[in-house]
Amino acid sequence: MLKLTNGHGSMFPLLLSCLCFLNSFGFVVCGFTSSFIRTQWPAKDIPLDNEVFAVPKGYNAPQQVHITQGDYDGKAVIISWITFEEPGSNKVLYSSVEHQYGHTAEAKVLNYTYFNYKSGYIHHCLVDGLEYNAKYYYKIGLGDITREFWFQTPPKVDPDSSYKFGIIGDLGQTFNSLSTLDHHMKSGGQAVLYVGDLSYADRYQNNDGTRWDSWGRFVERSVAFQAWIWSAGNHEIEYRPDLGEPTPFKAYLHRYATPYMASKSSSPMWYAIRRASAHIIVLSSYSPFVKYTPQWLWLRSELKRVDREETPWLIVIMHSPMYNSNEAHYMEGESMRAVFEKWFVRHRVDLVFAGHVHAYERSYRISNVNYNVTNGDRFPVPDKSAPVYITVGDGGNQEGLAGRFLSTQPEYSAFREASYGHSTLELKNRTHAFYQWNRNDDGVLVPTDSVVFLNQYW
Amino acid sequence: MLKLTNGHGSMFPLLLSCLCFLNSFGFVVCGFTSSFIRTQWPAKDIPLDNEVFAVPKGYNAPQQVHITQGDYDGKAVIISWITFEEPGSNKVLYSSVEHQYGHTAEAKVLNYTYFNYKSGYIHHCLVDGLEYNAKYYYKIGLGDITREFWFQTPPKVDPDSSYKFGIIGDLGQTFNSLSTLDHHMKSGGQAVLYVGDLSYADRYQNNDGTRWDSWGRFVERSVAFQAWIWSAGNHEIEYRPDLGEPTPFKAYLHRYATPYMASKSSSPMWYAIRRASAHIIVLSSYSPFVKYTPQWLWLRSELKRVDREETPWLIVIMHSPMYNSNEAHYMEGESMRAVFEKWFVRHRVDLVFAGHVHAYERSYRISNVNYNVTNGDRFPVPDKSAPVYITVGDGGNQEGLAGRFLSTQPEYSAFREASYGHSTLELKNRTHAFYQWNRNDDGVLVPTDSVVFLNQYW
Repeated sequence: MLKLTNGHGSMFPLLLSCLCFLNSFGFVVCGFTSSFIRTQWPAKDIPLDNEVFAVPKGYNAPQQVHITQGDYDGKAVIISWITFEEPGSNKVLYSSVEHQYGHTAEAKVLNYTYFNYKSGYIHHCLVDGLEYNAKYYYKIGLGDITREFWFQTPPKVDPDSSYKFGIIGDLGQTFNSLSTLDHHMKSGGQAVLYVGDLSYADRYQNNDGTRWDSWGRFVERSVAFQAWIWSAGNHEIEYRPDLGEPTPFKAYLHRYATPYMASKSSSPMWYAIRRASAHIIVLSSYSPFVKYTPQWLWLRSELKRVDREETPWLIVIMHSPMYNSNEAHYMEGESMRAVFEKWFVRHRVDLVFAGHVHAYERSYRISNVNYNVTNGDRFPVPDKSAPVYITVGDGGNQEGLAGRFLSTQPEYSAFREASYGHSTLELKNRTHAFYQWNRNDDGVLVPTDSVVFLNQYW
Repeated sequence: MLKLTNGHGSMFPLLLSCLCFLNSFGFVVCGFTSSFIRTQWPAKDIPLDNEVFAVPKGYNAPQQVHITQGDYDGKAVIISWITFEEPGSNKVLYSSVEHQYGHTAEAKVLNYTYFNYKSGYIHHCLVDGLEYNAKYYYKIGLGDITREFWFQTPPKVDPDSSYKFGIIGDLGQTFNSLSTLDHHMKSGGQAVLYVGDLSYADRYQNNDGTRWDSWGRFVERSVAFQAWIWSAGNHEIEYRPDLGEPTPFKAYLHRYATPYMASKSSSPMWYAIRRASAHIIVLSSYSPFVKYTPQWLWLRSELKRVDREETPWLIVIMHSPMYNSNEAHYMEGESMRAVFEKWFVRHRVDLVFAGHVHAYERSYRISNVNYNVTNGDRFPVPDKSAPVYITVGDGGNQEGLAGRFLSTQPEYSAFREASYGHSTLELKNRTHAFYQWNRNDDGVLVPTDSVVFLNQYW
């Protein structure tokens, strides 16, 4: 019973019931609060000695290998890794032919301290000039102690390039996180849009940096092989002046490089990339964003560079959701909504993905751009030009689920459920995309909210 | 016809008429839009060769002398000045006895470049351990080329310490600015709460730093003799990646020191001081302020440190107003309002001063804390716990007046007029304060909006 929709309808698995009624705006509302109750695994991090965090064998072996897009259009990657005993080799050997490695690129090496934690040697290497739609093999390390991986470049930027993204947020490093990661790797996502809150190292005494390292080893099984597109959440801030650490995002910025300069951004915290048929805009919820600030000025320019004839799918990712009917973090996104929502509507953004709330929720196409502190216009109304807002903060971190939704489901909310999971977005062509939220059903991936989105431009 | 009020009423000069009516909340509203039309002087900066910008005579003479409070409680000042030929003496000689200068303090010296501008040597000197309520003389410079000034320390922090503040915003350096400055010096303010936008140097090609210097010389006539409490506006951002200048607030932060560490802030952009019977909180409209950010965490802590038994008057200053019914910058303060308004109400803030809009406006005690994106509560309602919001962005800069108010005056707006001017706030004791907005009536200071505020705590 898959339903073709512009975001106002939804498909529910057969086991779930859906009460539809005519709402006060005069259109059919199928707002759905799932009654699913999971057998919850404990919201506790996996012990450090578990094999999921295993340190690769050998002296100074590269670990925490991860890649992200390295340019605007997908013909480059940034390959990053960490060594501990010494800086070691800063070279990446790569080739489109396995085991032959005819090309070399050189990494920059950073490190940092955070209170009494001392990081390893963090390598970031830009590998550019790649072919589209090609498989590349790469090798890092030195002498006998090397490690080999591969990745697939995206198809060329083209309105009908099909592509499948995974969307993951608030992952952490529990057994629930492992289940999410496992399901993402099974669900066929070719790259990840990551909506912030990575390791939750800040939940440990003195923001224990070793939990950044364990997380790096944990996610390597996916991110060494495919680009994850990073955005930062509140757990990346790590503002601890009491520890002599007043600089926000210190570990995150050292560890996770982004190709921000390729989109004329002046900060790695906000940037854009184009990948296949999508133009992806990454915003920073915890950096300045009001009028006149660098992020505001950049976004205004970037939206002018969007060409829907080339990239029909305009997608925004951020950490703090603008629409959320969970009691957790309710209305925390109002500040950014007050500034950017009207631009999202004007530019007909297709989808806005956020994390932060540890539950799943999808909105209808609604906007609140007429809200006016003076005249009393006051709550979101259906708006065909508006994006669908999707919260995927249910990766599975140690803080557990946000189980309490507002008791009456607001009219803007189409589907909500407090379970762990991740989403997939399959861009088919310039007009159609198949979207799905996949619940971690205690070990089994269960597609639970499925929608076909029609492109907002074509 | 001075009216005693808790902020819901107002006194108007006899020449002005006032229509009062019962509004939809059931209380008397006297919202007033002034019909005054000024003979406007041109909104153009005074030429650089005018005597108001005169460089003091002599080799390497200290210029742009300015002082601000140097600690939490008013027993210290930061004395700043600039030399151009060489760093010169970094010493401040000072004493409570004229011409005797028995004490010495040492300045730190900074400089900076901005595109092709090279700053002079900027000296910042902390002079601490002062007595309350005392006059101090100070001397800077070297050999024959010295300059002498004086300042008065505030009375001790005490609930009944009376004190008179001037409030100035968006000053710039036109003849209108000169009129505002002149009127401030006549109106008896003992210190200035400055609500952002100082020199407007960013309106010149390549953000010409020489206009920062001319502004420093322009305001020296007041700020060398009394503390101005600084907050930053959008014209201080000066974000120009196209000029290789991506660091916000570069000139401002080098030139204007603030005692931020005394209030446990980690940034000079936001901080607090206590002065006489007032606790003054300085916020930064263009720095991160949403939940989890440094400014948010700091304000939450600082509000706990406020002791209304010691400092009954709780005053907040910022640049972008939360309530403003001018068409200019309408609702630009919504983002910060969404985050901080509920705290202002809960902590019974007395007054919130802002600038940004080039006109004058005063609100009633109203709040919009019940605004809820879901349930439809929707516009500001009378709230006795709420602050009065006052916009004083009418210092007189080159951008001219914001002459177009929303055609219907909102119920939250008590008085508004698009004229140049400044305000004075005279804290009489723990219960009463006399407030006045003073229009620049083309050369003559005309008190135009006068209110007695009753303290929100006592």
